[in-house]
Amino acid sequence: MSMMPVLSDEERSPEAAAVFADIRAIRQTDFVNNFWRVLAHDPVALKRTWESIRQVMAPGALDPLTKELIYVAVSMANNCEYCIRSHSAAARAKGMTDAQFMELVAVVGMAAETNRLATGLQVPVDTAFQPATGGPFNQV
Amino acid sequence: MSMMPVLSDEERSPEAAAVFADIRAIRQTDFVNNFWRVLAHDPVALKRTWESIRQVMAPGALDPLTKELIYVAVSMANNCEYCIRSHSAAARAKGMTDAQFMELVAVVGMAAETNRLATGLQVPVDTAFQPATGGPFNQV
Amino acid sequence: MSMMPVLSDEERSPEAAAVFADIRAIRQTDFVNNFWRVLAHDPVALKRTWESIRQVMAPGALDPLTKELIYVAVSMANNCEYCIRSHSAAARAKGMTDAQFMELVAVVGMAAETNRLATGLQVPVDTAFQPATGGPFNQV
Amino acid sequence: MSMMPVLSDEERSPEAAAVFADIRAIRQTDFVNNFWRVLAHDPVALKRTWESIRQVMAPGALDPLTKELIYVAVSMANNCEYCIRSHSAAARAKGMTDAQFMELVAVVGMAAETNRLATGLQVPVDTAFQPATGGPFNQV
Amino acid sequence: MSMMPVLSDEERSPEAAAVFADIRAIRQTDFVNNFWRVLAHDPVALKRTWESIRQVMAPGALDPLTKELIYVAVSMANNCEYCIRSHSAAARAKGMTDAQFMELVAVVGMAAETNRLATGLQVPVDTAFQPATGGPFNQV
Amino acid sequence: MSMMPVLSDEERSPEAAAVFADIRAIRQTDFVNNFWRVLAHDPVALKRTWESIRQVMAPGALDPLTKELIYVAVSMANNCEYCIRSHSAAARAKGMTDAQFMELVAVVGMAAETNRLATGLQVPVDTAFQPATGGPFNQV
Repeated sequence: MSMMPVLSDEERSPEAAAVFADIRAIRQTDFVNNFWRVLAHDPVALKRTWESIRQVMAPGALDPLTKELIYVAVSMANNCEYCIRSHSAAARAKGMTDAQFMELVAVVGMAAETNRLATGLQVPVDTAFQPATGGPFNQV
Repeated sequence: MSMMPVLSDEERSPEAAAVFADIRAIRQTDFVNNFWRVLAHDPVALKRTWESIRQVMAPGALDPLTKELIYVAVSMANNCEYCIRSHSAAARAKGMTDAQFMELVAVVGMAAETNRLATGLQVPVDTAFQPATGGPFNQV
Repeated sequence: MSMMPVLSDEERSPEAAAVFADIRAIRQTDFVNNFWRVLAHDPVALKRTWESIRQVMAPGALDPLTKELIYVAVSMANNCEYCIRSHSAAARAKGMTDAQFMELVAVVGMAAETNRLATGLQVPVDTAFQPATGGPFNQV
Repeated sequence: MSMMPVLSDEERSPEAAAVFADIRAIRQTDFVNNFWRVLAHDPVALKRTWESIRQVMAPGALDPLTKELIYVAVSMANNCEYCIRSHSAAARAKGMTDAQFMELVAVVGMAAETNRLATGLQVPVDTAFQPATGGPFNQV
Repeated sequence: MSMMPVLSDEERSPEAAAVFADIRAIRQTDFVNNFWRVLAHDPVALKRTWESIRQVMAPGALDPLTKELIYVAVSMANNCEYCIRSHSAAARAKGMTDAQFMELVAVVGMAAETNRLATGLQVPVDTAFQPATGGPFNQV
Repeated sequence: MSMMPVLSDEERSPEAAAVFADIRAIRQTDFVNNFWRVLAHDPVALKRTWESIRQVMAPGALDPLTKELIYVAVSMANNCEYCIRSHSAAARAKGMTDAQFMELVAVVGMAAETNRLATGLQVPVDTAFQPATGGPFNQV
């Protein structure tokens, strides 16, 4: 059970109701998932998070499916079951196939392994991987 | 400084030399980065990791750039500086632009935030996000 | 189910019984939660952990509610459901309101996001954020 | 060195300049720290993050110092050096003493230990820690 | 429920069947656990992971029980319930006692605490802990 | 540089001096590493941490080297450079060889990979891995 009740449409505040209406309009579905229904206890956070996520996930230099795959991968690395499931559903809706999902998982696992090997061995960063440029602001 | 010396070409074992030769042939460059030069203290691990990463990152249902972007994103989530730098360089070599890199970082940050909101609030998984199918093996 | 049985009052060792008695006396309740009942399999760890937590959470330069809020926040960052729930209950008992809990979650989420942005971008630490003082022992 | 150059006032875009001006006005200082100067490569992310952090960290049910202490604690749990240093400086500016900082670190350490004990032992959540209420939306 | 169906012996591909046969032969049991049954959706990953884990966990400079204890400890640190349970079962099969398990958990908890204290305080590495040797490749 | 000055022998409080004396007596060396010199700003935490770590790392059902190897492994998983370096030095002093260190790193990496595969795929725990026993206290 969630830390705060999952709010039904009747239990929301008017501010939350406006965000729910926007979610429904944008997604073209009546379904509002639990994440927003719990976050609705803080209508300001609800509105900020919904608008931020819309902005971040909008088509840009990366296409929406690629962004969603990255979202799922990070959710796996951060061990968030809710996010793995909800963003995998979103990725499926954007076209992710079973084969793509399995390859995504394999990359997440492989990266986790080499991340820990590099950390465990404290491998020094090669000069070749340092950015070539650096003005007066860019010293460490 | 690394936990074990970064091995020069002269210091490697013959088994490691064979892997280095393969790295050079596949990547078509004489440059062998520090990760492999430290891992070379365990030639069996060196060979296994190199072959695994080649297999995982090969073109498949996901294209190589998408895989590399996921690798960078996971390395950020796992906080591995070496891996962020080396795989960002690899992503650059496969065509990643500045704008794509900045969007990637934004998705990683956004996912980290909602991952923690969902965890902090212990949001229950919606029935809609559960896989529809499940035989006798698939019960929790 | 836990990795080791949750011990009832009858199943504990005498050393664990003494710690349970102290927990009951200090908290002024008969209730001993599962964390202590599983840790009781190692009575030395039980006693050390109970005494450490009492020392750390005692009123000091920070008041008990602030410490409990920090405890909950760290438990969210570390993704420990048991600890989120048990320390949120403790924070409630010390006066945490719904509004405070929701703001706490928002800060945890926001910090997670900017933590990953700073890590992903490898932002160099400003000189202004380095401690001004540093004797011969304090060099890196 | 950062992944993208730390932008000077001359190198920023007009959109970033407007955010920098707001940071200077709100903080009443000419100093703009590196986090914003690197994030300025994505002016939309710069503006969103600045406005979100202002909203989250504003006085509310929790006072600004308590929020800053939570921010520092989460940054320690997430292992972000930049954030530990920058938000500790912010907490200092809001009144955090040496003694409070040391107690904060102790709570972060203690929570990390019991988080892992609870996870390692897979301690089942006590019924007493489950929220008492739960309508039809709140089932897991 | 898992993200992909847990495959029965009838549902596997021929490539996966060969790996299952090897698992059964090596472990001398008909039981194939769910990890392999879900990973079997990607037979190449199944084969690679099984062969890698066999190679890593084979007797070497460290004995199999010590390796398994390390595996359990890392799984606790990484918060993976499946892995904590499956590798604890493996450690039990290799002789791990209740007392050893409880000591293992205590070390994992203690390390988590001092890890966060060292990170929170940003303790500089003592010169004495830096490797004494370092050729031209080993500079940071 | 550390968040608080690294205290020299002259700068410590009398309470910290007593702990330093104990560290020197137990370890039979005059060397007191930076971790204790920074933690000395909170003499109560210094004493508690020193005594806890002595208790946890004492010979028991697991031998001291095995405990130290687990400590290093967890420090790698938690990404703490100070702890990786200081506890690797301790493990070396207790007999850890280069070959053992390299195998330790390989297990840490392998566990990280399968931890993320199991999490990413949300593999359901096999009934065979659930503890057989469970009284009225042990329900989830």
